[in-house]
Amino acid sequence: MSKLPHSRKLIGSDRVEGTDVYGVDGDKIGSVKNLLIEKRGGQVKDVIVSVGGFLGIGSKLHSLPWSKFDYDTDLEGYRLNVTEDQLKDAPSYKENDQDRPYDTDYQSKVYTYWDEDPYWDGDRPAGRP
Amino acid sequence: MSKLPHSRKLIGSDRVEGTDVYGVDGDKIGSVKNLLIEKRGGQVKDVIVSVGGFLGIGSKLHSLPWSKFDYDTDLEGYRLNVTEDQLKDAPSYKENDQDRPYDTDYQSKVYTYWDEDPYWDGDRPAGRP
Repeated sequence: MSKLPHSRKLIGSDRVEGTDVYGVDGDKIGSVKNLLIEKRGGQVKDVIVSVGGFLGIGSKLHSLPWSKFDYDTDLEGYRLNVTEDQLKDAPSYKENDQDRPYDTDYQSKVYTYWDEDPYWDGDRPAGRP
Repeated sequence: MSKLPHSRKLIGSDRVEGTDVYGVDGDKIGSVKNLLIEKRGGQVKDVIVSVGGFLGIGSKLHSLPWSKFDYDTDLEGYRLNVTEDQLKDAPSYKENDQDRPYDTDYQSKVYTYWDEDPYWDGDRPAGRP
């Protein structure tokens, strides 16, 4: 089976889910729960990271802009471009609140906190507050 | 919880996996197994569709270019822009051959079959055959 470079550029969504996430200092700080993808365009916009808890119970979930993630070929995992302390104060939600990351108010808080331009501005009326 | 338009534009990778896939005629022809995503860019490139079999046993797996998928808001699922007959003759692999979709030879056959320009051409040497 030939393995040209492009083949190493792809990763299965099921292989991303559950992988460890490392902080900027190299410590493990959580794991990927799932990815939020544009339904039509197929672009990953956000990553849901599960932090703390035990076997998924009692964990905090953070959605983070995709741009905060670097793929680390040495780790064969994702390195989060933030510190654990930054993440601690970031917007989060609980496991039983599954629809939260799709909520615009929540997303706005996330993007403001991480100082990222929201990608949905085009949807808003020109005179938005 | 406010639901502005953008919130409906995102879907969780875990919600895509397992969803029904409909053919161009509206019949169900399989289900999404997973998505192949660019490790760095986060763009979905291919969709793995499981066809036939029983509880996943004996099914054929197809990887298909993302461009063949249309999100159907009525179905709340993905409609495949091909017929069942087209899919029948398309490159496929078996469940126990998990690495196949990452293989360049296989991918080349897929993209040739579906008449799509390969996205990895930039990786190849200029004098490639």
